[in-house]
Amino acid sequence: MTDRPKTPLLDRVHLPADLKRLSDRELRQLADELRAETISAVSVTGGHLGAGLGVVELTVAIHAVFDTPRDKLIWDVGHQCYPHKILTGRRDRIRTLRTEGGLSGFTKRSESPFDPFGAAHSSTSISAALGFAAARDLGGDPGDAIAVIGDGSMSAGMAFEAMNNAGHLGKRLFVILNDNEMSIAPPVGALSTYLSKLYSEGPFQDIKAGLKGAVSFLPEPFQEGARRAKEMLKGMTVGGTLFEELGFSYVGPVDGHDLDQLLPLLRTVKARATGPMLLHVITKKGKGYAPAEAAADKGHATGKFDVLTGAQAKAASNAPSYTKVFAQALVTEAARDDKIVAVTAAMPDGTGLNLFAERFPSRCFDVGIAEQHAVTFAAGLAAGGMKPFCTIYSTFLQRGYDQVVHDVAIQRLPVRFAIDRAGLVGADGATHAGAFDVAFLANLPGMVVMAAADEADLVHMVATAVAHDDGPIAFRYPRGEGVGCDMPERGIPLEIGKGRMIRQGGRVALLSFGTRLAEVQKAADALAARGITPTIADARFAKPLDRDLILSLAHDHEALITIEEGAIGGFGSHVAQLLADEGVFDRGFKFRSMVLPDTFIDQANPEKMYAVAGMNAPQIEAKVLEVLGVAVVGKRA
Amino acid sequence: MTDRPKTPLLDRVHLPADLKRLSDRELRQLADELRAETISAVSVTGGHLGAGLGVVELTVAIHAVFDTPRDKLIWDVGHQCYPHKILTGRRDRIRTLRTEGGLSGFTKRSESPFDPFGAAHSSTSISAALGFAAARDLGGDPGDAIAVIGDGSMSAGMAFEAMNNAGHLGKRLFVILNDNEMSIAPPVGALSTYLSKLYSEGPFQDIKAGLKGAVSFLPEPFQEGARRAKEMLKGMTVGGTLFEELGFSYVGPVDGHDLDQLLPLLRTVKARATGPMLLHVITKKGKGYAPAEAAADKGHATGKFDVLTGAQAKAASNAPSYTKVFAQALVTEAARDDKIVAVTAAMPDGTGLNLFAERFPSRCFDVGIAEQHAVTFAAGLAAGGMKPFCTIYSTFLQRGYDQVVHDVAIQRLPVRFAIDRAGLVGADGATHAGAFDVAFLANLPGMVVMAAADEADLVHMVATAVAHDDGPIAFRYPRGEGVGCDMPERGIPLEIGKGRMIRQGGRVALLSFGTRLAEVQKAADALAARGITPTIADARFAKPLDRDLILSLAHDHEALITIEEGAIGGFGSHVAQLLADEGVFDRGFKFRSMVLPDTFIDQANPEKMYAVAGMNAPQIEAKVLEVLGVAVVGKRA
Repeated sequence: MTDRPKTPLLDRVHLPADLKRLSDRELRQLADELRAETISAVSVTGGHLGAGLGVVELTVAIHAVFDTPRDKLIWDVGHQCYPHKILTGRRDRIRTLRTEGGLSGFTKRSESPFDPFGAAHSSTSISAALGFAAARDLGGDPGDAIAVIGDGSMSAGMAFEAMNNAGHLGKRLFVILNDNEMSIAPPVGALSTYLSKLYSEGPFQDIKAGLKGAVSFLPEPFQEGARRAKEMLKGMTVGGTLFEELGFSYVGPVDGHDLDQLLPLLRTVKARATGPMLLHVITKKGKGYAPAEAAADKGHATGKFDVLTGAQAKAASNAPSYTKVFAQALVTEAARDDKIVAVTAAMPDGTGLNLFAERFPSRCFDVGIAEQHAVTFAAGLAAGGMKPFCTIYSTFLQRGYDQVVHDVAIQRLPVRFAIDRAGLVGADGATHAGAFDVAFLANLPGMVVMAAADEADLVHMVATAVAHDDGPIAFRYPRGEGVGCDMPERGIPLEIGKGRMIRQGGRVALLSFGTRLAEVQKAADALAARGITPTIADARFAKPLDRDLILSLAHDHEALITIEEGAIGGFGSHVAQLLADEGVFDRGFKFRSMVLPDTFIDQANPEKMYAVAGMNAPQIEAKVLEVLGVAVVGKRA
Repeated sequence: MTDRPKTPLLDRVHLPADLKRLSDRELRQLADELRAETISAVSVTGGHLGAGLGVVELTVAIHAVFDTPRDKLIWDVGHQCYPHKILTGRRDRIRTLRTEGGLSGFTKRSESPFDPFGAAHSSTSISAALGFAAARDLGGDPGDAIAVIGDGSMSAGMAFEAMNNAGHLGKRLFVILNDNEMSIAPPVGALSTYLSKLYSEGPFQDIKAGLKGAVSFLPEPFQEGARRAKEMLKGMTVGGTLFEELGFSYVGPVDGHDLDQLLPLLRTVKARATGPMLLHVITKKGKGYAPAEAAADKGHATGKFDVLTGAQAKAASNAPSYTKVFAQALVTEAARDDKIVAVTAAMPDGTGLNLFAERFPSRCFDVGIAEQHAVTFAAGLAAGGMKPFCTIYSTFLQRGYDQVVHDVAIQRLPVRFAIDRAGLVGADGATHAGAFDVAFLANLPGMVVMAAADEADLVHMVATAVAHDDGPIAFRYPRGEGVGCDMPERGIPLEIGKGRMIRQGGRVALLSFGTRLAEVQKAADALAARGITPTIADARFAKPLDRDLILSLAHDHEALITIEEGAIGGFGSHVAQLLADEGVFDRGFKFRSMVLPDTFIDQANPEKMYAVAGMNAPQIEAKVLEVLGVAVVGKRA
C-alpha cells in the first residue's frame, strides 16, 4: 500500500536474532521504524494501539539483549504485543490482527514459540514466569524468564501473590514494571500513588553511568561480586522499598523510551542477576503518535483510523449499546434511590459506569484490577445497608468466583451482579468470551440469574435488581448494540422467576434465554414458510426457572428447544433437570438444548462466531427441522 | 460438668456491653477465664483451638473498647472466633460447636448480630470491612469497621487488593494484623519474612507510655492534631513501611497477650484515627495451653481431647484417608518420574503434600494462601516442561477459577488438578463443601474430569494424570476414609473417557460418578430383596463422557439414574445433554439425575449431611422405586 512507512532496517529483521547484528544506533532507528509500522498496521486493523506504542523501545531492547525464544518473554495482558509480533516473524500477517484466521490481538502459545505463555486477562505474567524459572531450575526448559507487567496489572492480588512467592523462592527472574500510569482507565489505588511518588521524588537515574561503575566492580568471587553489584544498583535508585521488602532487587525508575538507558541496564542485569529483579520502567502509553498521546485513554483501543489525522472510522450505529443502556438505566434508578452504589474493577468506561461516576462520584467505586476484592467489597456494602451493583464482564467475574460463592451467595447478601460481555465477543476472541457465567452462577443456592433478551428488558432487569433485596441477583447482557426496540421510560421490576410468551404457535416450542431471541424469531419466520409455526418464549430467568411456563410448553408441544449463549451446565441443563424430575421424558418428549460448543472459539466477527457456535437463525431452523423429523422433507422441497 | 473451669467473672458477662463495667485489672482476669472456658469447650467438641487461644486478649480488648455490634468486628477466616462467641451471648451453646444444629465453627451472619460478616475462607475481612466503612460514610449502617486478619491470610492477593483500595480511599478503618507466624502451616513467602523482620529488629514498643504523650499532643484543629498523633504513633514503630506505602498508618508491633498494651492502644486509635490504620499485633497460636503450644501446628484443629494431658480421642480408622492415598500414590509416581512437581496453597498437611515435600523438597512448592497464583504458577511449570500436580480443595479451587479457564484450559496446558474435599465435608459445613467443581470444570473445552469411586481408583487416577500430557486433567476425591478395598501396588493409567461396569442387572441402570458408588451398591442390595437387580456402572469420567457406556445403558434399560456428590450442572447435566442430543428422550426414557440439593447444607456429621442431601442408600433405593413406578407396590408389601 502506498501509505506504508519506509522501514529499511525493519525490512531486514525477520527474527530477534537479527537484532544482535545491529548497533545500538541502528536499534534506535529500528525502534522508530517499528513504531511507524505499528501505527500503520493498527490503522488498518483497529485494536490496542496505545499500549504497543508505549513499549516499542522496550520490545526492541528485550529482544536485542535476551535470547528469545529460549528466554521466555511474557507480556502481561498481551495487548501491547503488536511490536513484539512484528519483530518475531509475524510482520507479514500483522495486518490480519484480530480478524478471522488472522493473528490474535494478544499473545498466544499456538501462534508462535516467541509467545511462551499467552495472555489476555491481566496480572498472570509473574506467576507464569516464576513457573518457567522453577521448571528451568529443575531441569525443564532452559532460559531466563522475563515478565513485562503494567502498573495497573501490578495492583491485582494475583501479581502480589506471585511477587510474594518469587521473593521467597529467590530464583533468578526478571519483572519489568511498565509504568505508564494508565491501565485502561487511569489506575487507582495506593500502589499507584506509591509508584507516582517513586518517580516524582527524583529525576530519572543515570543508569548508564552508574552501571559502568557497577560492572567494573564485579570481580570474583561471583557471590561477592553479585552482592556488590546489587548494592551499586541499589544506590542508583530513589526508592522501591516496597518491592525490596518483598524480596526483589529494585532498579529504577528509568526512561523506557531511551534505548541508551534500557540496553546497558538489561545487559547488566542479564549478566549479573542471581535472584528476582524488578526493573521499574517509565513509559508513555501512545508514545510517538500525537493523536494517541492526546486521547484520554491514550489510544487504548481504537477502530481503524487515518494515520495522518487519527480520525477513526465509525461504524454506523442504529441502536444503543447494551452497556450504555445498562448505565443509563442504573443512573435513572440511582437518582431515585440513594442507597444504590456501583463497583467496577478498573473498567469504568467498558462497563459504562463512567456515566454513573459523573453523576454520583461518591457512590461509584473503582477498586482497580481486583475482582476478588470487588465482589467481597460489594458484599460488605450490601451488609452495610447499601444496594451495590457489582459490574464486571462475564469473563472477569471468573476472577471473583469464590467470593460470589462464599461471601455473597452463602450469606444471601443482596449484591447485584451486572454481567457485561456475556456470550461471544468478536475480535477479542476466546479469552474474553463470557461462556461460563450462567453455569457457575445458576447452581448457587439463592442466586437469581437473568439474561436480557433485548435492551428494553435490560432496563427492566436493572429495576428488578434494585427491587430484589432478599439475596443476590445477576443479569447478563452481551457486547454490542441492542436490537433497536422501543425503550421504556423507566424500568418496571419483573416478577422473579417468570418468563414471557413471545409468540404462540404449535408443535415445537423455542425457549430462549438472552439475546439469541432475535435469531429465534428469524428462524421462526423462516419456518413459517414451511408451515411450521413454533411457539416462542423468553425465559428471562435461568434461576429460579419458570416451572409453570416450561412444563406447560412441554405439555402443549411435541418438542422443546432451549437456546442460550453459554456453555453446557447453564439454563438448558436446569431445564433438562426439571423435565427429568417431572417425568416429562418418561413418556417420550423431544428436548434439545442449544449451547455454545465444546471448543474455545477464535476471534472473528460476531456473526461468524455465532455461525461457528451454531447459534444463528438457519442453525436454529435446522435444529427444529431435525427434531421434528422434517429435515428431509425440507431438502426435497 | 465437674471439670468445667471456675469462671466467676465470665459468668457475669453476657454481652460485650458488660465489659464496659470492668476495670482493666478485671479484664485481665476475664481473659484468663475466657481462655480456660475456650479450652474446656473445645475439649468437648473438637475444633479449631490454637487460633482462638491466640486471640483471647485481643477479643477481650476489642469488645471492651469498641462498641460491638454497632462497630463491625470481622474475624478473618473466622476459626479463631470461639472466645468471641463466648463473649457475645453464645456461651450457653459453645459446647455445640460444629455439630448439627449447633454453633458454626466460623463466624456466621445468621447466628448473631455480633457476626456482621461471616467467613471460613481466608483473606476476605479487609474487603468486607471496607465495604462497611464505605456504606457508613454514605449513610448506611453506622459504626467502625475492624478486620482482624492473620499474617498467613494477609499474604493472599485478595487482602492486598483490599489494602490497596483502602489506602486509596482513605476511610477510617482498622486492620488488626494478628501475626502469629502460623497460618495452618508455617507461612511462606516474602511478606512473612518481612513481618518477622519487623519484630526481630526491635523489642516490643512501649505503646502505653508513648500513647500518653501522643494523646496530650492532640489539640485543635483536629486535622493538625490527627497528623501529629500519627507522627507520634509512627515514632513508636520500628518499621511498617510496606503498609505505609499502601496508605495505612502503621502501629506496632505490640504484644497481643498484654492487655496493658492493647487496651490503651485501641482506646487511642479509636479516639483519634481518621484514615486506615494497621495495628501489628504479635500473638502465639495456642497461647496458654501447653499441649497446643508444643504441637507442630500449635493446636490448629483438634479432635475432642483430655484437658489435663492434651491427649486427643482418636476415632478408630479402618481405611486410609483419600488424602493419604493420593499423597502416597503421587510419591510413588514421582520416584519414577522426576518431572513430577507439586503445588499447594498453604495446605501441605491438609492435602497430604507434606509427605511429598519430605521426599522431594525441591519439587514441592507451597506458594502460600494464593490459589490464583498457584494455578498459573502450575501452568508456567507445565509450559516449562514439568508435570505439575496442583493440589487444592474443591472449595478453594473456586479462588483460582479464572486461572483454570484462562491460563490452563485455553492454552491446553497439562496441569493436573488434584481436588481434595470434593463433596460434603461434615463439621466445616457449607463454606467448605466442594459442590461446584464438576460443574465449573466439566464445561471447559479440553478439560478431563474424573472422580474416584474408591481409594484404589484414586491411585489409578494419579497414574492417569501423570500419563495424560495432552491437556489439563482433574480428579476429585472426598474428605475422609476410603472404603477399605484392596489397594494396587501401583496405579495403572485409565483409558481416558471410559467408565466401568460394576454389576450387570436389568430394568434400571445406576450410573455413579465418585464415591457415592458404595451407597449405590447398598441400595442395589436392598432392591434385590424386592426382585429388582439394577445394573451399576462407575462413570469415572464426567468429561469426556463414556458415550458408548451411557448409550448402551440407555438402550438396555428402561431407566437410568446418575448419582454424583455435586451440584446441578455437572456430570448428570452432561449425561442429560448427551441423551437429549442422541434423541434418547424422544422415544420415552426414564432419566433422573441425583445431585446435591439447591441449598447450602449446614454442618452435621457426614452421614446426616448425606441424608439431608438425599444421597444415602435408602434415598437412592427410593428414587429407583419411584422411577420404576413400584414405590406404591413397595409400600403395600
